[in-house]
Amino acid sequence: MPRGLFITLEGGEGAGKSTNLAFIRQWLQRAGHEVVVTREPGGTELGERVRDILLHSKQLHITPESEMLLMFAARAEHLAKVIRPALAAGKTVLCDRFTDATYAYQGGGRGLAAERIAAMENWVQGDLRPDLTLLLDIPVEAGRARAGQRGEPDRFEREDNEFFTRVHAIYLARAQADPKRMRVIDASRALPQVEQQIAAVLEELVHGR
Amino acid sequence: MPRGLFITLEGGEGAGKSTNLAFIRQWLQRAGHEVVVTREPGGTELGERVRDILLHSKQLHITPESEMLLMFAARAEHLAKVIRPALAAGKTVLCDRFTDATYAYQGGGRGLAAERIAAMENWVQGDLRPDLTLLLDIPVEAGRARAGQRGEPDRFEREDNEFFTRVHAIYLARAQADPKRMRVIDASRALPQVEQQIAAVLEELVHGR
Repeated sequence: MPRGLFITLEGGEGAGKSTNLAFIRQWLQRAGHEVVVTREPGGTELGERVRDILLHSKQLHITPESEMLLMFAARAEHLAKVIRPALAAGKTVLCDRFTDATYAYQGGGRGLAAERIAAMENWVQGDLRPDLTLLLDIPVEAGRARAGQRGEPDRFEREDNEFFTRVHAIYLARAQADPKRMRVIDASRALPQVEQQIAAVLEELVHGR
Repeated sequence: MPRGLFITLEGGEGAGKSTNLAFIRQWLQRAGHEVVVTREPGGTELGERVRDILLHSKQLHITPESEMLLMFAARAEHLAKVIRPALAAGKTVLCDRFTDATYAYQGGGRGLAAERIAAMENWVQGDLRPDLTLLLDIPVEAGRARAGQRGEPDRFEREDNEFFTRVHAIYLARAQADPKRMRVIDASRALPQVEQQIAAVLEELVHGR
């Protein structure tokens, strides 16, 4: 059995990941895929506990190296227990954030060297990379204005605009460096147009395979 | 100011770490050291949360890679917030378990390759290594018999004798490979004799420096 597709969704605060995740899942299901929807950090019992430390610690300052290692600890568990088994069973895995987010947040945001992240990526993932990454792109201030309408901000959401500008820059740089895998979706447009862009990319992936 | 001494204490279950830790602290204090006593996993707010996941999850199976990354995530935090600042201030750090335990438990016990642990060690610690490691050595079955008299076993203590035999073998192999740093203390003897052995090694460290 050929392994299933591995699709990841990335984007800064307020880019509309949740809404579009539902659209992507439905699109894939209509195209006949069995879809496993999951998220990072999280996706396993251990991962959700790590997520809770990373996102919901009110006062906790965490060393950047430690933050990155926690992300990869959760990822190793997620790969072993959820992602690899699903792909091996021919299912399509749709993951809300993955390693591009580590480059963007821990690399760009926290200032960790990309080579260190790349070394961990190789170590934890072997040669597994997403087949497609959809980057929901929206200017930092517009995204934050949207996100700000939601509830209590998490540990990352409390960072300042400069942090998110660095995150945004790394996301775009990664898409430029790997345009075949990582597709930029203009998420500042109205929802029907965002969905149209996503559908076009999915069409290409599924039929171009 | 010269950096302080970094002393770690290792040993399997029931080797008497807690009892001897108190003796070592007192000995060093009497010799004029300002001593910071800490432990791994743990030693920081983040580290203690990670410790709770690693030790006190009743049902949780954790992938070996993930277990190791959690250990190093806690260690990175511990080094940045506790160990390095104390050493830089000229204090003596006495740590209950450190990276030798990762080689023994995640390497020997869980079967992770030593090279992977060594790569993480270099990455997280740079060139910082303990000045002295005291390995409290006791045959596996005797140690487990002692430890079994305590309360509820943790996630590691629930492992079988084969696991602890592998842990023990790695500890001894590391001491053989690095006899200057890692000193084997026969912890199966009566407490006064164990203390005598420890005092002799500390004497040598403090005056041979």
